[in-house]
Amino acid sequence: MTTARFDYAPLLPPGLPAAAAKWTGLAKYSFVGGNNDMDQVPVEGLTAAANAAMLREGRTLATYGLASGPQGYLPLRTFIVGKLKRDASIDCTADDILVVSGSLQALDLVNHSLLAKGDTVIIERDCYQGSINRLTRLGVNIVGIPLDDDGMRMDALATALEDLKAKGIRPKYIYTIPTVQNPTGTIMPESRRCELLALSARYGVPIFEDDCYADLIWNGERPPALHAMDKTGSVIHIGSFSKSIAPALRVGYIVAPWEIMSRMLALKIDAGSGALEQMVLAEYCVPHFATHVPKATRGLRAKLETLMDALNEQFGTAAEFDEPKGGIFLWVKLPANVDAMKLYQAALKAGVSINPGPEWSVDKAYAGSHIRICFASPTHDEIREGIAVLADVCRQEFGVPERIANVEKRARG
Amino acid sequence: MTTARFDYAPLLPPGLPAAAAKWTGLAKYSFVGGNNDMDQVPVEGLTAAANAAMLREGRTLATYGLASGPQGYLPLRTFIVGKLKRDASIDCTADDILVVSGSLQALDLVNHSLLAKGDTVIIERDCYQGSINRLTRLGVNIVGIPLDDDGMRMDALATALEDLKAKGIRPKYIYTIPTVQNPTGTIMPESRRCELLALSARYGVPIFEDDCYADLIWNGERPPALHAMDKTGSVIHIGSFSKSIAPALRVGYIVAPWEIMSRMLALKIDAGSGALEQMVLAEYCVPHFATHVPKATRGLRAKLETLMDALNEQFGTAAEFDEPKGGIFLWVKLPANVDAMKLYQAALKAGVSINPGPEWSVDKAYAGSHIRICFASPTHDEIREGIAVLADVCRQEFGVPERIANVEKRARG
Repeated sequence: MTTARFDYAPLLPPGLPAAAAKWTGLAKYSFVGGNNDMDQVPVEGLTAAANAAMLREGRTLATYGLASGPQGYLPLRTFIVGKLKRDASIDCTADDILVVSGSLQALDLVNHSLLAKGDTVIIERDCYQGSINRLTRLGVNIVGIPLDDDGMRMDALATALEDLKAKGIRPKYIYTIPTVQNPTGTIMPESRRCELLALSARYGVPIFEDDCYADLIWNGERPPALHAMDKTGSVIHIGSFSKSIAPALRVGYIVAPWEIMSRMLALKIDAGSGALEQMVLAEYCVPHFATHVPKATRGLRAKLETLMDALNEQFGTAAEFDEPKGGIFLWVKLPANVDAMKLYQAALKAGVSINPGPEWSVDKAYAGSHIRICFASPTHDEIREGIAVLADVCRQEFGVPERIANVEKRARG
Repeated sequence: MTTARFDYAPLLPPGLPAAAAKWTGLAKYSFVGGNNDMDQVPVEGLTAAANAAMLREGRTLATYGLASGPQGYLPLRTFIVGKLKRDASIDCTADDILVVSGSLQALDLVNHSLLAKGDTVIIERDCYQGSINRLTRLGVNIVGIPLDDDGMRMDALATALEDLKAKGIRPKYIYTIPTVQNPTGTIMPESRRCELLALSARYGVPIFEDDCYADLIWNGERPPALHAMDKTGSVIHIGSFSKSIAPALRVGYIVAPWEIMSRMLALKIDAGSGALEQMVLAEYCVPHFATHVPKATRGLRAKLETLMDALNEQFGTAAEFDEPKGGIFLWVKLPANVDAMKLYQAALKAGVSINPGPEWSVDKAYAGSHIRICFASPTHDEIREGIAVLADVCRQEFGVPERIANVEKRARG
């Protein structure tokens, strides 16, 4: 179609990320990407919701923002208010909520409202790759706080805050995924949340609370959100429907005081997030969310069992993990001689995609032998088969796991 | 709900735009925002499309990107390929298309792929506010090229390119809305497109072609897209379904060579654009787009007639305008003593929202007495009533139009 090609290279600005590679499809055994379980998408309910909402008010699609203003479709915001009250003990109004295009846009809006190059932020040492990458691209200094079974360690946080203060540095925020942490799957208990809020107040550092996996807890019980426990407006809370309903619907939300919400709104110059998805979600969630989520979570829990069994069977004691309290991923420690980045590459060639630990941690050395395995999307059979292939690859590359079978289930947690 | 408030002010980075004001609803007579005609939203067709697509493949919503990869839902990209061939003479494949969250995201992705602070770009002097604002925020130097009845003036462009070359400046792109220009409504003829491509090639400056209003042409006839006439990959083409189907669906697209597409993909870190909206659009558009658009356009044309009649009746010779060849807006020149920014404020108080010219031009002085009037969203009655109110406000503030009635219709074009 073209002859002498125009050369864009001299026009590219400095600091651009590397060019994307061509997409070649999902791996046969895909344990990455935060995808969900196809069987759990409430297709009939969403279809009925689309019907009802469209026939009643589809005409409003003619107006940007559905005449609900830039903060998003009002019935969806109203639903979120009720959901947050019921599930997370958050008291807020529809005016405190900004509907966004997935929690990734929430990350961008919060970051761009608060961060400049050279700023410092505090996050959990092992953390969602998308959060780490965004901060790296912004040229922000990242201080990683180690985690234990109860999430971010407060002794380490206190030390870090004091050290920074001694250097005259006030971090811009403390980012945490306190409720089903990614990748560790921990839930921060209420007492530790109190400590975190006290440290936040003492050092004048706001908390950025990412609750996007919080709906998926096996027993359905969770502590109040940090936002709910705060009385000063120092917590910016974000959430998502990607995990509870469907990830390809790009709908998330931010709960924040107007002082910072008004800054985020000024940066949200996209003429609103997708209105049909907001309409369908509101219509579906009002009657069905509270029953759908426990059902979906039971399905995820069953897949986790299959994954843990497969790991125990295939890897034996070579795979160490704490049983997560909810979510869609398992954080697995392999023997120290396993290079997770190399394992990732070799497994991909064998049709198995996993997340290598160094991409999910700010401490690349610590996470060098860790991998993250997402278990929501593959079927039970695919989980068993994929983990068997992964074990074979790992054995070929690193000599572990040794060829053993049916060892006793072993979990640290 | 809170007591001593956390103060975010010391944490805000430099260069942040001003805080947003609280949204207070749409004006009674709203002639802004690019909204569409409620009566033209194909509600039944979109509803049926949602039904069919959801029941057939709603399960795929469990996977980010619907397993179509990061460039967007494949059936939609395939539809776009056929539409662009038919309407704009563009030869491309689905691999050349990136589906985005409205053409605003297209603007962002192109800008962030090519621009750094201090760079220079060329745009049409009178231009879409969102494009101007984005460039201003990026700290880019904007060179505005005046327009005539055939769009961007090539003599002025040649002079600007030569002047910049003499200063050692290579602009990053020439941004143009050649097919139903915003705000002037002009269409650049094919011969001038040839000239533009020749200048682009001579100076090594790529063209950024924004065709987002191009579907709405009264007689349905349009020249080939610049992208179609180019043989070198020097044209980045963007389009949207906001104007042809519904603006609250946030779906647009970019057509670009892989060299620059791969850079935009690396910057599109949103886990894909809304999948339900892509599914519904593909399902609806394949059978219905070609018949829906002319029908919608006829409705717009009728509203334009009402608007021009109302302006002639209320403003007489005080309102000068060229009849646009398509689109949803009219660019109106008022007498030189009318300050469009003041008129905008006074009209808003009276319940009429308009776009003041200085916000839609890089030459604030030139556009000081211009206003942009969007006519798709208000009803015929609202157009007549709103323009009458606007004339009253203008008369009170500036003494024009004089109180005359039923003057002869007068349009320059």
